[in-house]
Amino acid sequence: MERIPILRMGKYLLVTIQIDMQDQTALLLQEDLATMVEKTGAHGLLIDVSALEMVDSFIGRTLVGISDICRILGATTVVVGIRPAVAITLVELGLSLGGVKTALNVERGMAMLNAAQDA
Amino acid sequence: MERIPILRMGKYLLVTIQIDMQDQTALLLQEDLATMVEKTGAHGLLIDVSALEMVDSFIGRTLVGISDICRILGATTVVVGIRPAVAITLVELGLSLGGVKTALNVERGMAMLNAAQDA
Repeated sequence: MERIPILRMGKYLLVTIQIDMQDQTALLLQEDLATMVEKTGAHGLLIDVSALEMVDSFIGRTLVGISDICRILGATTVVVGIRPAVAITLVELGLSLGGVKTALNVERGMAMLNAAQDA
Repeated sequence: MERIPILRMGKYLLVTIQIDMQDQTALLLQEDLATMVEKTGAHGLLIDVSALEMVDSFIGRTLVGISDICRILGATTVVVGIRPAVAITLVELGLSLGGVKTALNVERGMAMLNAAQDA
C-alpha cells in the first residue's frame, strides 16, 4: 500500500502529493496526519499539490476533509501549488474548496501559517 | 476573438470590463487571469465594471467564478464600480454576488486589498 510521507519542518508539517490518490491512500494519509498533528503538536500543515495535473472531486473532498480534521486538532492547513488549469476545473466542478486556505506556493503558504500564528 | 486586457499594477492585477462578455470571452478571461496570477504571483485582482450598464446572470456567475479561481490561487478579488441600478438588478435576479468582495470604486478596492494583505 502506498503511503504518502509527512515531513516535519519545525512547527509545521509538509506533505507533497505526487500521485493520484486512491481511496485507501487518502484514508491512510488522513489517519497519519491526524496522528502526526497530535504527536508533534504541529501548528500548521502545508499540502503541496503542484505535481498534480488534475484534482478530481475525490481529491478535492479529501483536502477539505484533512483541513477540517486538522482544524479540529488545532492546526491550520494551507493547500499550495494548485495549477491555474486545476483551479478552473475545480470551480467548474462546483468544488471551490470553501473553508480550505490556499496559497500560490510553499513560501506564501508558510507566510500564511506564520501570520495565522501571530493572529 | 475579443480578449480583455489584464494590467499589472505592482502586486495587483487590474481588469476593466467594457464590453458585454460572450461565453468565449469570459472563458478566455478566466484562463488568462488564472495564468497571470500564477505567473506574476499577484496578491490581488481588481475588476472594474463601471462601464457596464447591465450585469446579467452570466456575467454575475463569471465574476463569482473568477473570484473563486483566484482565491484558490491565493489572490483576493475585489469587484469595483458596480452602478446603483446594476446592484438593484443583481439583487432582483437573486444574484447578490455572495462570496465576492465589492467596493465602490478602484481606490476603495485598492484599500481593501491592502487591508487584506496586512491581515
